[in-house]
Formats: sequence, structure tokens, C-alpha cells
Amino acid sequence: MEANKEIETGNNFEPKFDANGLITAISQDAKTGQILMVAFMNKEALDLTIKTGQAVFYSRSRRKLWKKGEESGHIQKVKQILVDCDQDCLVLKVEVDEGQCHVGCQSCFYREVKKDKPEKLGFVAEKVYDPEKTYKKN
Amino acid sequence: MEANKEIETGNNFEPKFDANGLITAISQDAKTGQILMVAFMNKEALDLTIKTGQAVFYSRSRRKLWKKGEESGHIQKVKQILVDCDQDCLVLKVEVDEGQCHVGCQSCFYREVKKDKPEKLGFVAEKVYDPEKTYKKN
Repeated sequence: MEANKEIETGNNFEPKFDANGLITAISQDAKTGQILMVAFMNKEALDLTIKTGQAVFYSRSRRKLWKKGEESGHIQKVKQILVDCDQDCLVLKVEVDEGQCHVGCQSCFYREVKKDKPEKLGFVAEKVYDPEKTYKKN
Repeated sequence: MEANKEIETGNNFEPKFDANGLITAISQDAKTGQILMVAFMNKEALDLTIKTGQAVFYSRSRRKLWKKGEESGHIQKVKQILVDCDQDCLVLKVEVDEGQCHVGCQSCFYREVKKDKPEKLGFVAEKVYDPEKTYKKN
């Protein structure tokens, strides 16, 4: 309990990585407040993000470091990193250009759950770039 | 791959619960855009949130449903639920009163990582209520 209190109210940064060595990181547009994406970091990705000022994540599917924008060019300049009470989640306040999601929208959160018909989603955003032109074909 | 494409670009809501049956949910102040907290939902919590319009999470530490504000009174009225591209994360746009974090701050993200001294955190928020008065002593 005292250890928890120190984590919550102290000023030591002790990021709590999960069993896979990962911590959740939310990218939020520093200007508009829009939540752009949610991804994961391992310790190396976090250290690189702090050191370089550009968001680096860990791709669970590709099992390697993923410098955001390395392929698309849509990098994230990190203006501030916030940590939550139990230090198992980070918010990155970032400066971005247009188009942060690989489907072509500004944010990954481009669909909403319809309250009256929750099994169906409604689109709430338009594409801001053409991912077909941005990403190389496999 | 085609299944992934349907998940990402289709309009069927198919929330991807993890191995523990949980999905990440971010509460964001619908008015200010401030990220308030990050928690988890199981299917029951998500269904109740959609049905009741008030945020219900699943507490991993207490291993039970947790209606946000059930003890503190700081409930979250859900105005919109957004889902991300791969449907493994939700954003709840919520209406709230003052004080969403149990330490007494409006947001759980009340500390920042200092770029020049990343092992130390800086406080970026003041307390907006006294948790000692709000929460019953154990």
C-alpha cells in the first residue's frame, strides 16, 4: 500500500510495464485535443521517444520498434509526456501533420458506436489522405 | 487480411477483447478534450455502459464491475463511444463534474515526464477535491 502511494503521489517515474514488457501510450493532438491513436511502448521505445522527441512505439504484430511515420512520413513530435496515477499508461501530447491513421483518417477513432443499434458503427470522419499512395504495396 | 480489412473499414462493431476478456477504454472530457482516465471493460461493462449511458468499467484489482463514481459520486455521463481501427480500444466522450481521479485531481494524468531529467516527474495539476473526505476509510 505504501509502495502504491509512492507510485501515485511521488515524483519518481517508474513506468509499469506489463507481463509482455509493454505500456499503453495514447497520442493526443497537442493543439486540438483529438485522440489520434493508442499503441504500446517497451522500455527501449519509451527511452527513444524521450531522447529523440519523436514518438517510437513497439509493434506487437511486427515484434519490433516502430518509429511512427517511418513509412508514411506522418511522424509525431512529442511536446509533453504525461503519466497516470498508477503509472501504467502514458499520454503523448504531439504535433502532427494531416493523417495519423493508416486507413487515411486523421485519427484511428473514426467510427462511433450507435446507441440505438450498438452492433453497427457510424463513420464520423473523412479520409484526409490516400493510404494507397502513401504506403508501398506488399 | 480480408477479415482485418472488414474490422478496420466495415461498420460492424466487433470489439476485440484481450485474452482476459478486456478492452481498453479511455475517458475523455467531451467539452474540454482532456483525457481523464484509462480503464478496462469486459463485455458486461461495455453492454451496461451502452445501455445506461453511464461509464461502467471492470476493475482488475477488485475483479468486479465498477460503475465509475459508485463510491465517490464522480460519475461519467457517456455522450459518445468511439472505436479505433482495429477495434481493440474505445474512447468515451463523457460529461463529468469536478474530480475524476481518486487522488483528488480532475484527471489521472497529473504528472509529466521531464525531458531533461526523465527519472523525475513534475506535477502539472492541482487537486480539485479532497479524496480523504470523499472516500470512506477502510
